[in-house]
Order: sequence, then structure tokens, then C-alpha cells
Amino acid sequence: MSDLTPLHALGEFGLIRRLQQKITLRQPGTVLGIGDDAAILAPTAGQEVVMTTDLLVEGVHFDLSFCPLKHLGYKAVAVNVSDIAAMNALPTQLVLGLAVPSRFSVEAIEELYEGVRLACEAYNVDLVGGDTTSTRTGLTLAITVLGEAPAGQAVRRSGGKPTDLLCVSGDLGGAYLGLQVLEREKQVFLADLEAQPELDNYEYVVQRQLRPEARLDVVHELRELGLTPTSMIDVSDGLASEVMHLCAASGTGARVFTDNIPVANPTLEAAAEFNLDPLTCALNGGEDYELLFTLPVTAYEKIKNHPDITIIGHLTDKDDAVNLVTKAGQAVPLQAQGWKAF
Amino acid sequence: MSDLTPLHALGEFGLIRRLQQKITLRQPGTVLGIGDDAAILAPTAGQEVVMTTDLLVEGVHFDLSFCPLKHLGYKAVAVNVSDIAAMNALPTQLVLGLAVPSRFSVEAIEELYEGVRLACEAYNVDLVGGDTTSTRTGLTLAITVLGEAPAGQAVRRSGGKPTDLLCVSGDLGGAYLGLQVLEREKQVFLADLEAQPELDNYEYVVQRQLRPEARLDVVHELRELGLTPTSMIDVSDGLASEVMHLCAASGTGARVFTDNIPVANPTLEAAAEFNLDPLTCALNGGEDYELLFTLPVTAYEKIKNHPDITIIGHLTDKDDAVNLVTKAGQAVPLQAQGWKAF
Repeated sequence: MSDLTPLHALGEFGLIRRLQQKITLRQPGTVLGIGDDAAILAPTAGQEVVMTTDLLVEGVHFDLSFCPLKHLGYKAVAVNVSDIAAMNALPTQLVLGLAVPSRFSVEAIEELYEGVRLACEAYNVDLVGGDTTSTRTGLTLAITVLGEAPAGQAVRRSGGKPTDLLCVSGDLGGAYLGLQVLEREKQVFLADLEAQPELDNYEYVVQRQLRPEARLDVVHELRELGLTPTSMIDVSDGLASEVMHLCAASGTGARVFTDNIPVANPTLEAAAEFNLDPLTCALNGGEDYELLFTLPVTAYEKIKNHPDITIIGHLTDKDDAVNLVTKAGQAVPLQAQGWKAF
Repeated sequence: MSDLTPLHALGEFGLIRRLQQKITLRQPGTVLGIGDDAAILAPTAGQEVVMTTDLLVEGVHFDLSFCPLKHLGYKAVAVNVSDIAAMNALPTQLVLGLAVPSRFSVEAIEELYEGVRLACEAYNVDLVGGDTTSTRTGLTLAITVLGEAPAGQAVRRSGGKPTDLLCVSGDLGGAYLGLQVLEREKQVFLADLEAQPELDNYEYVVQRQLRPEARLDVVHELRELGLTPTSMIDVSDGLASEVMHLCAASGTGARVFTDNIPVANPTLEAAAEFNLDPLTCALNGGEDYELLFTLPVTAYEKIKNHPDITIIGHLTDKDDAVNLVTKAGQAVPLQAQGWKAF
């Protein structure tokens, strides 16, 4: 431990200079990055700008006892880029605010930034500003991301129409089971400090929890298919909650077929081991960061065989409410539990 | 106290709905505000976008024992708008991240938002998004502000040239003395809980600390005078530190005449009472949020009699370093103390 550099040895400006050296700017619209009172950007003509922000707080959104700092940095960017993707937009720039407890070393902050840097590279987004400060309490990250979509093509939650197909990317419930695995290993570790975590069988679900990806690939694919969703939201709080949000904003009901909800095999296996209902994990688990969106029925032929998009139901009239339809054809009103911030 | 609403009674979405009702959108470029995965903005054609972010942490940047929540909300916006002003830009939109300790009531958060709302009104900026979460520790605010400047006219720290006039708006040192007054009254209060704060004689300096204003008026006035600063920075860490930053970025030295540094009478009086050197307060006090900028000497006639802009010196060759020139004509190399984040 004695080889690590304490934060005060470098100071705020020293730290910023050190972190700044590794930053590459890729976006043609970035005129000036870190180092002035503000960044200067030139948005592309004919594009609208979208903007989203998130706060991640230690002990609430992440647990450093099992979340490596590099993964945390990556995830912090990914979950914000996911909100940009949910607007049918592509990310361009981001700023990062960091409140760091004094127990952190310079090397720890560099690990965190390395994750941020890797995510910027993966999503082709420029880190153009930030604010780094001390805190007497837990690590806190504040990220704001800008993105662009062709004017009029940013997709809101509110554009869904009855009969529209309800689609979801990827699979659900994995991130929640990953969290269960990590929590269990933490308890084992707390009971026996010599214990090594047993994560081998859970690689998929643990990765879904620690290093989710924003589905920019889906945004690109829909554009290539010539499809613009009528409404879209990202699945951060569990499918049930997001379907309710989308229907409330669109003024519709929905029918969601339980049999169609995509759950990956490793998720099913982990659920069985933890004695959890995989459907409940998919509906209320959260943190999957997949995209939930609606398309007109005319899009059916184009997506019915898409390997990474599943049609899970369709929108209905508002009066029909939001229903979960079981294999036996029974309709049950959907209830959102999801994530409680307070 | 029993009439206050606990945060969990309302939940995150309930709180957001309640706060959202009071928000007015004023900017023509705001296409969609709060309520979706991201806001949608349409930047003005021919303008560049500037972007800045700040984290404010309880116990580090503010002390709730003497900073009312409404003032805190106002100040959080003002200090970010000040960074936008320092780019010669006008603010357009902002997003607010809020990590709230569970001890806070809904009414307390509404007070904070009321301050944010008032600042949005004063600076003509739209609140278009946010993230509200709980925290187990101190209140934390994360603000990101966008602004616009005509393409090519955003002013950096780096454009200053030798012989340029070095100018500052308003007066300096007041915010630091306001903090001294508040800290003293806090100690009195801690010693005697019945004591009432004696702030009457210190109205000016206390206001400079609790409710600073971003100098957008100076940005407007310079535009009206047809003047574009060659370089600019806002005075958040004390004049000395900011002159050093500006000179380092511009690759120049500077001569700052101590006799010219503007200090208001109430600041002088408070300094005398606290046995502090007013010049030191102005140079190293911080949080004045005035604008420090450079203009070509040809601008001299236009600003020499401006009531709210003071010429405090001029830039020089880099080799001359940054010097403070006393009344007696003695040059002393300037040393920045300023604010230490760690």
C-alpha cells in the first residue's frame, strides 16, 4: 500500500493534468475539451441534441467491496449512454463529476478513469469536462452525456399507438441474478477472509451486473433496417416498470406475453439455484439496460427473425390497462415494483 | 416538524412530478424537458454550444448550518452559469443531479428547488432534466449547464497577448469575508443556542457568500460595446490563482497593480474588524464569481470609465512572469494559494 500516491500529494490540478493526458478526442463536433471554464462544441447541422444526467452514489448504486473501480467507471458511462440510445440517438460528449473520499489513492482514481476511457472508446464519445473534488463520505459520480439524432427523429416514450408491436433487445433478469451472486460471495468473504469468490459458473450474470453495455448496436441496426421506433425507453428499473412508463406516456394499455420475455440460459440456471422465479427477475430485477420499444405492425416481417430483438407483446387501448398474459391465455394486470430511490 | 413529509412517502417519481409542476421553459431551443430518458434540444444555427459541470458536496462546498437551502439552490446554478459567462456565452439549459440524505423532508427539497427555479428565471435558463437519489451521507448537487455563443466567439483562457489590458468586473474579497462572518456566528450559536445571528452590519459580504450572481450583465455589456475579450476566466478561486491560470494558458506574464484591485467598502470594514488584509482576501479569498478578462489596449477608451469594470493591470511577455506591483512601484512575483480541493 505504501507505494500508492495519496490524493493530496498531487492536488486537484495535478490530478486533472495527469488524467487528461490519456484522453483522446474523436468527435468532429468537439472544438475544445477539458481545461477551460467550459468545453466548446459544434453540434452537427440538421441534428437535434439530447442530454441526460445520472448520479451514482456509493452504498446506494454500487458496492466497492465487489465492484472493481474500472468496471464502475465503465458502467457509469454505459448507463448514461443507454439513456441516449433510448432516444434513438448516438452519444457525442460527456462530462464527469467525481467526489472522492480522501482514503482513495491517485492510482484508484486512475483505475476509475481507465474504465471511463474504455467506455468512451467503445461508444465513440468524448470526455470534454469534469469536476473533481474531495468528499468526507462515499464516492459519488455525476455523469452528463450529450448525443445527437437527426432532427425530428429523437424517439420519446410517448409515441406508442395501440396495435404497435412491443419489442425488447437482448435478454432480461441477468443483472439482478449477478447481484445476488455477488452479494452471496460478499457474505462468504465477510465470514472467512481467506475465501476466494466462486464466480466461474456465473460469468454471464455477473458480467451483466458489473459491466452492462448500452445497446447502441440496436440503434444502428434499426437505422439500417429503415425502422424508427414509435416509442422507446431503456430497461433500467425492470421490464414491468418500464412498460408501465411507456404506456402511461403513450396513453395506451399493453399485452405482454410471459412466454415471450427473453431470459438467457445462464440466468435461468442461476435463478433455479437461488430459488427465484426467473420471470419475476426479468420483470422487476432492473439494471439490464436493454431497450424496450414499439414499432408499427408493418415492421413485423423485418424483425420477426432478428436474433437480438424479441416481440414480447403489443400496445392496446388505454382502457385495456397493462396486462401480463400467461401461457394459458390468462391476463393479469401488471404491477411495477422496480427500483425505489428512497 | 411533524407536518413535514418524509421523502419515502412520495417516492422518486412522486417527488419528480411534484417538482416538475413548477418548471417553466423559456428557451426556444428546448424541444422536450424533464420526463423522458433524455431532454431534446435544438441549438441555434450559427452558435457554438458550451458545456460545464460542477459538484457541490455538503461539508466541503457548503455548510447547511448557515446556508439556507434556497440560497444553496440559487448559488449552485449561479456558479455554473458563471463558467458559461466566462466563455462569453449565454446559458440555455441545465440538468440537476441531487443526492439527498433520508433525513431531508420533501419540503426541504422543495426549498432547494425553489432556489434553482429562481436562478433559472434570473439567468433565463431551462431546467430540462435531472436525477434524484438517496444517499446515506451528505447532500450532493451535480449541475451541468449548456450555453451558446456565436460560432468562433466563445472566449478561452488562452487568447491573451502581451500589452492586453487585464480587467475585472465588480469587486473582490467580499465572499471570503462573508464566510468569516458566518463561521463566527456559527461558533457563537454553538456556544449559546439562544443567540441570534448578528448579520446586519455585514449584509453585503454575507450576500456575496450566500448568493453570488453570475455576471451575465457584463457579457451583455461587452457585446453592446462591440468588445470581445481576448481571454476570460471567472474568479472562483481568488484573483491570484485565476491570473496565474489565464497567463499560463495564454503564455504570457502580467503586471497587476495592487492599488487598482477593486474592494468594496463593506469588505474593507469587515476585513478591518477581522484583522485581515483586504488585499489578501481579494487575491486568495475565492468565491467572488466576478469575470477576469483581457482586452486589446485599443479598447481602453470604451471601458476606462465603466462603473463596473476595473483595469487592474496588463499582460506582459512570458519571461516577465506574473507580478504584483505595489503602490511604491515594487514588483513582487504573484503566488496563488486559492482553494485546495484535496
